[in-house]
Amino acid sequence: MTQQDPATAGYVFNQTMMRIRDPEASLAFYREVLGMTLYQRVDFEEMSFSLYFLGYPANHADKPLPTEATDRSRLTFRQSALLELTHNWGTESDHTFEGYHSGNTDPRGFGHIGITVPDVSAACNRFEQLGVHFVKKPDDGSMKGLAFITDPDGYWIEILNADSITDLIGEHGALSH
Amino acid sequence: MTQQDPATAGYVFNQTMMRIRDPEASLAFYREVLGMTLYQRVDFEEMSFSLYFLGYPANHADKPLPTEATDRSRLTFRQSALLELTHNWGTESDHTFEGYHSGNTDPRGFGHIGITVPDVSAACNRFEQLGVHFVKKPDDGSMKGLAFITDPDGYWIEILNADSITDLIGEHGALSH
Repeated sequence: MTQQDPATAGYVFNQTMMRIRDPEASLAFYREVLGMTLYQRVDFEEMSFSLYFLGYPANHADKPLPTEATDRSRLTFRQSALLELTHNWGTESDHTFEGYHSGNTDPRGFGHIGITVPDVSAACNRFEQLGVHFVKKPDDGSMKGLAFITDPDGYWIEILNADSITDLIGEHGALSH
Repeated sequence: MTQQDPATAGYVFNQTMMRIRDPEASLAFYREVLGMTLYQRVDFEEMSFSLYFLGYPANHADKPLPTEATDRSRLTFRQSALLELTHNWGTESDHTFEGYHSGNTDPRGFGHIGITVPDVSAACNRFEQLGVHFVKKPDDGSMKGLAFITDPDGYWIEILNADSITDLIGEHGALSH
C-alpha cells in the first residue's frame, strides 16, 4: 500500500455535488426518506442559486450541531461524507426544463451514491411504502441483497449492507496493493 | 430541523461512484496526488469490470486497516466518505473510447467531489508542481481561496478550506430549517 504523502495530511472527502431541479422535493427525499440532516443552506442571490449540504451527523458527532451560522459553516465544511445539492433558481417551475442527467445513460460518467444500511430488506420495504422508485430491488438479478433506488431527479442511490455485500463479493474481493 | 426517522438509524453515506477509463492513472492520482488509501479492489472477471474503493482512513480509524480480505470488505462497506471508481476493462487501451462525461457540460447533472484541506494555497502549489489541471485556481474569479482541479477523466474536484469558505460565504450562510 502506498503511504500517504504527509503533504496531504488532514485532507477530508467533504462533499459530492449534484444539481437538483426542486429543493422542496429533494430535501423531503433526503431528509424524510433517507434520514439525512440539513447541515447548511447557502443562498447566492446575485447568482440565483442555492446550495444545500446534507449528511448523517450521528456518524460523526455525539452532540447537537451548532446553531450559530458561522460555527455551523465551519463544522459543515470540515465534515466528511456530505451531499451538496445545487439548485439553480427557477428550474422547479420551468416547464421547458428537461431535467438533470443521472450519468447512467450516454454520455455516462458519474454512477451513483451509496448508502450503507443495517437491513436492506427492511429499508427497501419502507422505501416501497413511501413510493420510492426502484432501479433494482434487493432480490432482482444476480446481486442479491443490494438495491438501487432513484432520487427525485433520477440520480441512482445504491442501498447496501456491509455484511451482505462482503458475502456477495466473496472471492472477488482482492486486497488493495 | 426535521428529526431523523428512527427507521433510518445507522445509515451511512458510504460511497460516490464514478466510471474511470484507466485505473493506473486514476489510482496514481487519488493515492499520490490526493493522498487517499485504496481500501478495497473487487474484480468481476465474468462481467469484465473492477471496482476500486478509496478514502481517508485517518479520519475514521486510529489503527491500521485489516489485511484479511473479508475483514477489509466489512470495514470498507461500513465506512463513510469513500470514492468508488468503476473500471470497465479495455477502455484504457481502446483508442475509439471517447471518455467519460464530467456532468459539467450538457447534459449536466453531477458536478464535483470536494476535498477539504488545511491550506488551499499550499495544496494548490503542490498540485501545480505535480502537473494537475486546474479549472479554477484559488485566486481566480470572485470566490477567492477555493480551487477546482480535474482528475485523469476530467471529473471536477473542489479544493476548499473550512475557515476560508466560512468567511467567503459569510452572510450567504443560512441555518438549515
